[in-house]
Amino acid sequence: MPELRRDPIVGRWVIIATERAKRPSDVQRPLDHVPSGLCPFCPGQEDKTPHEVYAAGRPAAGPVDGPGWKVRVIPNRYPALMIEGDLEREANGIYDRMNGVGAHEVIVETADHTKDLAALSDAEVTEVLFAFKARILDLRNDQRFRYILLFKNHGQAAGATLEHAHSQLIALPVTPRQVQEEIEGARRHFDHRERCIFCDIVMQERKDRSRLVLENEEFVVFAPWAPRSPFETWVVPKRHESNFEAEPKERLAYCAQALRSTLRRLGAALGDPAYNFILHSNPLRDPASPSYHWHIEVMPALTHVAGFEWGSGFHINPVPPEEAAEFLRLVVT
Amino acid sequence: MPELRRDPIVGRWVIIATERAKRPSDVQRPLDHVPSGLCPFCPGQEDKTPHEVYAAGRPAAGPVDGPGWKVRVIPNRYPALMIEGDLEREANGIYDRMNGVGAHEVIVETADHTKDLAALSDAEVTEVLFAFKARILDLRNDQRFRYILLFKNHGQAAGATLEHAHSQLIALPVTPRQVQEEIEGARRHFDHRERCIFCDIVMQERKDRSRLVLENEEFVVFAPWAPRSPFETWVVPKRHESNFEAEPKERLAYCAQALRSTLRRLGAALGDPAYNFILHSNPLRDPASPSYHWHIEVMPALTHVAGFEWGSGFHINPVPPEEAAEFLRLVVT
Repeated sequence: MPELRRDPIVGRWVIIATERAKRPSDVQRPLDHVPSGLCPFCPGQEDKTPHEVYAAGRPAAGPVDGPGWKVRVIPNRYPALMIEGDLEREANGIYDRMNGVGAHEVIVETADHTKDLAALSDAEVTEVLFAFKARILDLRNDQRFRYILLFKNHGQAAGATLEHAHSQLIALPVTPRQVQEEIEGARRHFDHRERCIFCDIVMQERKDRSRLVLENEEFVVFAPWAPRSPFETWVVPKRHESNFEAEPKERLAYCAQALRSTLRRLGAALGDPAYNFILHSNPLRDPASPSYHWHIEVMPALTHVAGFEWGSGFHINPVPPEEAAEFLRLVVT
Repeated sequence: MPELRRDPIVGRWVIIATERAKRPSDVQRPLDHVPSGLCPFCPGQEDKTPHEVYAAGRPAAGPVDGPGWKVRVIPNRYPALMIEGDLEREANGIYDRMNGVGAHEVIVETADHTKDLAALSDAEVTEVLFAFKARILDLRNDQRFRYILLFKNHGQAAGATLEHAHSQLIALPVTPRQVQEEIEGARRHFDHRERCIFCDIVMQERKDRSRLVLENEEFVVFAPWAPRSPFETWVVPKRHESNFEAEPKERLAYCAQALRSTLRRLGAALGDPAYNFILHSNPLRDPASPSYHWHIEVMPALTHVAGFEWGSGFHINPVPPEEAAEFLRLVVT
């Protein structure tokens, strides 16, 4: 059983996931590599994965775990957390632990093995985002979970171990520290000014335009003022909304258009870089918030995160966001 | 002039260091690679570097910027921050910025191009640590600086771009967020219990022994309870001390022995892995603290930091610290 352990000094939770590596020396290799041609995410290979928990696009008569789907969600075969069991929070001297209870799922974004998310149509990306929403709505019924991390690792340098386009979700019994800090920072701003800081940022970026990459009716894409790494890019809804899963499908379609255009521009500008994106949304058990505002953070994996950056939270970024944004505005996709 | 920018939501400062890359696409290449054989850190090549700010081991009559030294500290030729200028803190709408004023220095750890820090003698590593202390004591006289980050990137995967053994320091006009959070977490523990949390941890680790790697009279080395990555290892003084630079040379010798043995064990256990270490110490302008406790965090760069970990502060570690510590205890160096 994996374990969740809390750092006693800063309160950061870490998953100690022993099932993912056999021996300490194994950590240097990809953990779930399969030979090409035997891709478990391809149609016709559904029996190579755990039973699906969601599928979209399959004809009504199509069998569960059969082909015909356009988006398919399955439990991760090598989960970082286990779906069954109680948390059993307990102390070990001055330390805290609990059982590594949670869900770890894979969202297969397309049936086409050759297509990246950026190569899909707006309608297809909308179905992927709708799958995210459907999984959150289902998993939030499990009262053990407090937060769902939704993210994508694209390319080996970004941590991907299978090529077939997919994203992942991890449902957690705790709220990740960095999300918590964002929520608290936004609340301080709200207490002081009675305005959402993300709404303020959206307003300033749309007015200033130097860091703006693109916008449509409902979403704005920009390079943030203090990006941690080159070409960090945020996709933010213009209208205030704390919870991603509260968005109707019509607005997810605008998000899909903005996200897909962002990924295409990054791909064209930087030559198909490895990248990660992560969805930041309000915790599951919190009421809808006037101060927090969901968004997607996209981070190309261009530079190694040096240890000093990781160990200090202090980042050096050689590319000003104004230059990155101009590059992404002008690039031909 | 580089710029320091503050994220308005969480308060993280980022250096936007435009001098380090010419064009956005340059970020994918090492920034200061030199052909082998022309190593600027070797004796006889002193004119290839900026003028030294510290040297140890050179015979009394030896000229500054000449050979004969054992440890040499020089300004970084491609500094992330500039030593000259005023901070000029100012607002840009809801955002904050200041000039990128600071020091960025390289500590060349040995004159021998072929030797890694782990291959030096205890006495030689002591001289390196003493150089750290000497530079902190000098730079703290500059009232613009609030914190000095001392760190080492070893191997390309850890961000090193030159082979010759060296570490770096960055003197900053702000305290890095993660250090600040550690200080605040330690203060909360102290307010509650009137004990230093690091002293508590040292006591529990020495008693428990399952995460202990080694100890000598003055220092203890262990895998922390909630490590962010496989084989994360901390070197902590047994006696309470908030400030690294307050340690007398006799105690730095014990630290050198513990650090060098740790690096040798990591090298033997994992096959000379890339690694980073970072020194966490009390900020320059704060009084000596009863609640904070300086230490060194060593992190082998075995796995990519996936974007979701970076974007959430939530880490998955496949190696329990008890297994890592046992491995490091038993390995033959």
